[in-house]
Amino acid sequence: MPKTSPGRFFEDFRLGETLRHATPRTVTAGDVALYTALYGPRFAVQSSDAFAKAIGYPHAPVDDLLVFHIVFGKTVPDVSLNAVANLGYADCRFLCPVYPGDTLSTVSEVIGLKENSNRRTGVVYVRSRGFNQHGDEVLAYVRWVMVRKRDEAAPAPPEHVPTLPRALEPDQLGDACPLTDPAAYDTGLAGQRHRFSDYVPGEQIDHVDGMTVEEAEHMLATRLYQNTAKVHFNQFTEGQGRFGRRLIYGGHVISLARALSFNGLANAFHVAAINSGRHVAPLFAGDTVFAWSGIVDTQILPGRDDVGALRIRTIATKDRPCADFPLVAGEDYDPAVILDLDYWALIPR
Amino acid sequence: MPKTSPGRFFEDFRLGETLRHATPRTVTAGDVALYTALYGPRFAVQSSDAFAKAIGYPHAPVDDLLVFHIVFGKTVPDVSLNAVANLGYADCRFLCPVYPGDTLSTVSEVIGLKENSNRRTGVVYVRSRGFNQHGDEVLAYVRWVMVRKRDEAAPAPPEHVPTLPRALEPDQLGDACPLTDPAAYDTGLAGQRHRFSDYVPGEQIDHVDGMTVEEAEHMLATRLYQNTAKVHFNQFTEGQGRFGRRLIYGGHVISLARALSFNGLANAFHVAAINSGRHVAPLFAGDTVFAWSGIVDTQILPGRDDVGALRIRTIATKDRPCADFPLVAGEDYDPAVILDLDYWALIPR
Amino acid sequence: MPKTSPGRFFEDFRLGETLRHATPRTVTAGDVALYTALYGPRFAVQSSDAFAKAIGYPHAPVDDLLVFHIVFGKTVPDVSLNAVANLGYADCRFLCPVYPGDTLSTVSEVIGLKENSNRRTGVVYVRSRGFNQHGDEVLAYVRWVMVRKRDEAAPAPPEHVPTLPRALEPDQLGDACPLTDPAAYDTGLAGQRHRFSDYVPGEQIDHVDGMTVEEAEHMLATRLYQNTAKVHFNQFTEGQGRFGRRLIYGGHVISLARALSFNGLANAFHVAAINSGRHVAPLFAGDTVFAWSGIVDTQILPGRDDVGALRIRTIATKDRPCADFPLVAGEDYDPAVILDLDYWALIPR
Repeated sequence: MPKTSPGRFFEDFRLGETLRHATPRTVTAGDVALYTALYGPRFAVQSSDAFAKAIGYPHAPVDDLLVFHIVFGKTVPDVSLNAVANLGYADCRFLCPVYPGDTLSTVSEVIGLKENSNRRTGVVYVRSRGFNQHGDEVLAYVRWVMVRKRDEAAPAPPEHVPTLPRALEPDQLGDACPLTDPAAYDTGLAGQRHRFSDYVPGEQIDHVDGMTVEEAEHMLATRLYQNTAKVHFNQFTEGQGRFGRRLIYGGHVISLARALSFNGLANAFHVAAINSGRHVAPLFAGDTVFAWSGIVDTQILPGRDDVGALRIRTIATKDRPCADFPLVAGEDYDPAVILDLDYWALIPR
Repeated sequence: MPKTSPGRFFEDFRLGETLRHATPRTVTAGDVALYTALYGPRFAVQSSDAFAKAIGYPHAPVDDLLVFHIVFGKTVPDVSLNAVANLGYADCRFLCPVYPGDTLSTVSEVIGLKENSNRRTGVVYVRSRGFNQHGDEVLAYVRWVMVRKRDEAAPAPPEHVPTLPRALEPDQLGDACPLTDPAAYDTGLAGQRHRFSDYVPGEQIDHVDGMTVEEAEHMLATRLYQNTAKVHFNQFTEGQGRFGRRLIYGGHVISLARALSFNGLANAFHVAAINSGRHVAPLFAGDTVFAWSGIVDTQILPGRDDVGALRIRTIATKDRPCADFPLVAGEDYDPAVILDLDYWALIPR
Repeated sequence: MPKTSPGRFFEDFRLGETLRHATPRTVTAGDVALYTALYGPRFAVQSSDAFAKAIGYPHAPVDDLLVFHIVFGKTVPDVSLNAVANLGYADCRFLCPVYPGDTLSTVSEVIGLKENSNRRTGVVYVRSRGFNQHGDEVLAYVRWVMVRKRDEAAPAPPEHVPTLPRALEPDQLGDACPLTDPAAYDTGLAGQRHRFSDYVPGEQIDHVDGMTVEEAEHMLATRLYQNTAKVHFNQFTEGQGRFGRRLIYGGHVISLARALSFNGLANAFHVAAINSGRHVAPLFAGDTVFAWSGIVDTQILPGRDDVGALRIRTIATKDRPCADFPLVAGEDYDPAVILDLDYWALIPR
């Protein structure tokens, strides 16, 4: 039996099975610095120990999306090495803050299987959970991917498509955010004066700036997350593939869009949940990413008067400024759209 | 009122006003490692805790220019988002050492305003001060930038051009350098035997080596400093602009020149002050940076016999080795020159 | 006398002389994060404090090859600034674990000299030793390089070629690995179930994946190691040289091959020794690196029943997958081969 892993094919997954993923990872101040260099985030809580302490954190927490990428990266060798496409995310909750020094590991459960009618591929649904070194769950989310079959003749498993919430409820938000002191939250230092009550559903915000991506950048990022998906790294093979070039990890786009969104959402400091996420089109090196956000909903959190929740839909585009809020074109997405992300962020009241 | 900031235009500045900049930033060992990877500095005091301790620091301080870039980065959203050009620096003093774990923030005062005769732009002078989490001032400097007017018809403010020193005086140097033990300063480990008394005014040093810059590198650096100037990141827009490409942050050139200057100035371990700095021409990815330095002056520091000060003029060029010390061509700079930097560095006696 | 160093030429070396290299360097969590971002290693012991503690380390040690690169980098200004080629490594032993916070410095002894028949160059053999801040030797190795003469007429030194072992012996391995608890070594978390007894001499493993290298990546890496060899950084000069482009530091290839080898050697967590290493051909940006390994030998370590040693020969190629284990073509290497590395790795029994 070979010692190298070819990854799992569709027929290798069993409904209900648990996948304990490899490569526990201690997150450090080094990872945080690289994350800053890769995306340029400016949210004060994650940027400054002093700011974080002032409002009630022990010190600056690790950026939520860096946690997401590290937890996600571990699932790739077991779930998506033979994936054709990463179809979506849902029911993603941040459950416990992560600080430099914490060690993260990931376990997934197969919660859905559906063979495609072509019999060559199938959709696998997994719920992945990230844990710290104390066994505390720090993150849980569902994603579904289209995976190739090794053998088209392999029998299809019983079809099971899980029911997923369209969005998390307000009482499911905030576990990863300690009780903070909104009076100590200095909006001057944070960069924008708008708090929870300043945002209204229906509001649209163009984040203005654009960020061009280089090959070295997305590969540094994706390796930092120990994400091994082949399509991101191997120009020799990808040069002969369907795009002729390396594909950028979808999570890289999410982090770019979130960093750009600081301009307009500077105080929405914590990603509490991701309701749904879809990579509408691929991004390649040399492309410039822009983003805009719409406020979908605003909710107070039961039992908390320090922070409220904004439900935000962030659309990222490539090579297309967002002053006119591009989204649809006919019955489909505008061709410039690459990401459609629906999430809850917490913001001081 | 929109939630995104368009930045300030010339007519938005008021003489004497204070700008409290956003995004406090905790500096970490991760930032130091990235700084090393980006420029390759080899000054022993900043590279080694053991070396720094031996001469009297509690441990290795953060590179002075990394401190400068982080303090500077915070001023960009408020001062230079609509800048046409960064015209110069002066009266820059390093006042307190910075160590990993310190949190930096920046405040600026508008100290000069002068509308240009075309009435489309004006020059803004600001004195920026960086502070650590204890409120200690770690850095102060003046810079002036040419900023666009939003409305050409807006009335000009009263003209005020501040008087700036051509150079700092010896008694203004050394506050960021603890008293050191020059006998414990091991020139063998530091890489060069020359001390204060080995340098003489008029001496010229070619730093020999060249360093080519890639797009990914300068963007990683500039994001690390949370500097948001649009011209560095957005190829989609810059591709349509006056250079057709992204412009490299001027501070990147300063750090490259300083790192190259190790070859000849290995023991000039601390930048105590910048007398003046001018970005003579832009640098673009693919260009190779060279540098040479002239010793302008040497001074002892009142009350200190551990270190002396070298006043150094460092000239950086692009795609032009510096064996013949290029500087002027006719009445202007040599066309290869990109930086003219005049600073004071401390060196063991 | 000029203050810049031109580096040593062949006739400057004396048999038996000691070179105390410059630039002591404190290794930090920032360096570790960059190393992860540059190569994507996934060995659990180095990735996770919790995993390392569970088996008996105080916390995660620094990757052995990162230690090698930092120790090596210091020798460049004194040994190989005027090198034509880095010919080989041998007798390399890791002697003491390195942890973030340790400060490394390097001393070399000239152990061999041999002028080439063309009288224009000669081969210099040095034994380099890396030490931590306590004076503990952490690494020792021999390398030999071909160095230019300054003056072809300079007399040749007495020829002395040191006798070097073809491979380290089992009783010379393991000093840098504390006694571990193999029962606590969780192969599920580490990513592969195979332990010492699962490997047999003669076995060949294709590491499957390929990694494309960008200019920014290898320059970031090489500067991180404070390796100043000119050929890696200066496109202006190299563009006029024999390859027309920047040459990638050979150690970058070693680290890439080692990271790729995780797929098949996931539990071979510690490089205990390098028996020999040869950079067969140069690597350039844009090339994609692949690798395969052969198991040359397996040995138990005297007095230790926690880990055994695998002697591994890893071959790296460029733009050539390794499913058929490319090595020779006629009497020479396969033209795609760039690295031939023979090393001992420890793996739990």
